[in-house]
Amino acid sequence: MFWSKAFIPTLKETPQEAESIAHQLMLRAGLMRPLISGVYSYLPLGYRVLRKIENIIRQEMNSCGAQELLLSALQPEEIWLESGRDKEMAQVMIRFKDRRGRKLCLGPTHEEVITDLVSQNVSSYRQLPIILYQIQVKFRDEIRPRFGLVRSCEFIMKDAYSFDQDQKGLRQSYDKMFQAYQRIFKRCGLNFLIVEADPGVMGGSLSHEFMVPAESGEDIIMHCSDCKFSSSKIEQSAICPKCKKALQKKNTIEVGHVFQLGTKYSTTFQANFLNPQGSQSPIIMGCYGIGVSRLIPAVLEQNHDQQGIIWPWEVAPYSIIILPLEVSDKKIHQAALNIYNDLIQKDFAVLLDDRDERAGVKFKDADLIGIPLQVILGEKFLKQGKLELKIRRDGKRIILDAKKLSEEIGRYTSTLQKAKEG
Amino acid sequence: MFWSKAFIPTLKETPQEAESIAHQLMLRAGLMRPLISGVYSYLPLGYRVLRKIENIIRQEMNSCGAQELLLSALQPEEIWLESGRDKEMAQVMIRFKDRRGRKLCLGPTHEEVITDLVSQNVSSYRQLPIILYQIQVKFRDEIRPRFGLVRSCEFIMKDAYSFDQDQKGLRQSYDKMFQAYQRIFKRCGLNFLIVEADPGVMGGSLSHEFMVPAESGEDIIMHCSDCKFSSSKIEQSAICPKCKKALQKKNTIEVGHVFQLGTKYSTTFQANFLNPQGSQSPIIMGCYGIGVSRLIPAVLEQNHDQQGIIWPWEVAPYSIIILPLEVSDKKIHQAALNIYNDLIQKDFAVLLDDRDERAGVKFKDADLIGIPLQVILGEKFLKQGKLELKIRRDGKRIILDAKKLSEEIGRYTSTLQKAKEG
Repeated sequence: MFWSKAFIPTLKETPQEAESIAHQLMLRAGLMRPLISGVYSYLPLGYRVLRKIENIIRQEMNSCGAQELLLSALQPEEIWLESGRDKEMAQVMIRFKDRRGRKLCLGPTHEEVITDLVSQNVSSYRQLPIILYQIQVKFRDEIRPRFGLVRSCEFIMKDAYSFDQDQKGLRQSYDKMFQAYQRIFKRCGLNFLIVEADPGVMGGSLSHEFMVPAESGEDIIMHCSDCKFSSSKIEQSAICPKCKKALQKKNTIEVGHVFQLGTKYSTTFQANFLNPQGSQSPIIMGCYGIGVSRLIPAVLEQNHDQQGIIWPWEVAPYSIIILPLEVSDKKIHQAALNIYNDLIQKDFAVLLDDRDERAGVKFKDADLIGIPLQVILGEKFLKQGKLELKIRRDGKRIILDAKKLSEEIGRYTSTLQKAKEG
Repeated sequence: MFWSKAFIPTLKETPQEAESIAHQLMLRAGLMRPLISGVYSYLPLGYRVLRKIENIIRQEMNSCGAQELLLSALQPEEIWLESGRDKEMAQVMIRFKDRRGRKLCLGPTHEEVITDLVSQNVSSYRQLPIILYQIQVKFRDEIRPRFGLVRSCEFIMKDAYSFDQDQKGLRQSYDKMFQAYQRIFKRCGLNFLIVEADPGVMGGSLSHEFMVPAESGEDIIMHCSDCKFSSSKIEQSAICPKCKKALQKKNTIEVGHVFQLGTKYSTTFQANFLNPQGSQSPIIMGCYGIGVSRLIPAVLEQNHDQQGIIWPWEVAPYSIIILPLEVSDKKIHQAALNIYNDLIQKDFAVLLDDRDERAGVKFKDADLIGIPLQVILGEKFLKQGKLELKIRRDGKRIILDAKKLSEEIGRYTSTLQKAKEG
């Protein structure tokens, strides 16, 4: 993509309405814009990040044998009366009557719908286990939206549901998801903590939350820096129950939550199956959520500096930005184009800043939008034919010939790969 | 994917509620299920088709330089008062107040939102032209939903918007979209007609509709089978204005609609730009819609036979289905697995019907779900070591050695490629 043709409206000033760093960066880097309080438009750069995150989630879900589907946002209110959750969700669920008088709502979650669907289409143990998931827009009537995409009225969730014959099967499905979640959050470049949690409104027995430490996080957990024990219960004594050291309070953003539901929903919606012994049993369920859009601010809280964003490689909207500092110079212009075409050919996502702007503006914008690698063609190129490769994360600069660029980028990506595996 | 682990609930009987062939096939082949009238859940097989169609659209939009973003479904009612379209959309737009008393609606379309967005972020001719698009869920309070995904209350649209300096620019953007639409519908395997249409509620001057002839189509157009003239005006005289032959009525499904909007929205939302002469001008707009989810029934209406679906190659949920007819036979089982792994390695999407079912059941299901190529391992394999490759579209069967399979599939796909180019 050529920047001159791209819709990337960066801002010089920090918008006053943004309280958290992540929210400020999302506005300044042109990732999104507010429509009204708590409701946002993703601009092309932000949308590219969203798609990267979605695809990481898809890959890891599919690798567990989970199957993607898509349920409707519209739901009949009736199924919420059946599960008894209409009262628990009373405040946040958006409800209305349609022209035909049907009482509808915008589903804040889909346990009711999917259990009903499975109850009508699964009847035998031979059809189990299955794990179904979707990546879908959700709505919440949020009384006080805050921190941009962290607490908004419209957001994107990944919700998965497992269906098993027995507790042993549920534990296996739960474990698969638990492992997949760790891979997903690692690939997004996050440091996170896993906390045993209260199942709350969802029901069921066991539940874990995946929490990202962040200054602006609204969920407070207790954490032991020594033995890494974490808990969502705010203990007054605050002594680590495992190693007896003092616990510390940590502000975190919840990015994932997994639940062993058991038979709460399958009993309500008669989701039974014929077991190998020939009798009917209720299906044993689990459910597994990820706040997909919320992952963007979570990533930003942990990956930035004074100059702007530092995207982790796998979620970056572009991997490489090319900065020709004198676009009017034909030699620089042509060299930049050649590098662009070569890298595109090698399947890199590349942004070429072909705008007729001062070097300072380009450097500032490049640091702000946080593309991992910057290829700079400036004075050194005119005088010595050398490029500069700048690594956004550590600011390291490598001076090299154009023909050595791919090799150097390959070295960088293989370092990342090794770090991931290690 | 192994069928035994997949959630593909095919039906033997045709559901009574389904009036059209496409609707019947979508239910019988396990592509979707109704939640309530006019609201559907896409099951994994249907969702794969949806993703295939979305990706065709993405490729063709991106190849025009259009940039993807994502706007919110939630919109303030206020912007509809500003554009004056709140009355025109009164019947179909879902509206409600949130807890804070804000009047919100679920956007049936996004001209207001995107014009407002662009007005705040584009100020100079140097930022033009741009084309922005999204693939997004839309809601309509449909009084009489019909034919499954053809007229439903929740559906998926691709809506694109072009922003130009002048009429000449608009014509160029319009033409790009016009060409892209033809490529998209061709790649989806559709026969379609292009009709000059009434801009109606959208406003503006020129407008074209892309119509797919189908028995269950609710849009009636006049068509000349001789000179191919088509019109959405139902003329009583019905004489072709171009060649004077008799016009015929045709039932069609509208799958795309493009509009030259001009300045209708940019004037309302003060979307102006500084032109090269240094004065303010309103941005000239176009808008371009595709009914993404509606394309599935449109494709099905034109691509089926008595036995079921015949997916066009590019939108098929899987390209190849392997049918081992005796899964208990170790030799057949192992051969099927080898073929599966080999084809997966070659990047084909493959479904292996490893269910312990009678040959008749497998043949019926394979024909019903309409995967383009069937690889059959049956008696001929046990006796002579030969596979059968059946082409779903024409029923042609080729007997061949397992090691010749990739070559034969390659021959088939290159025939498709040639037909596309020709």
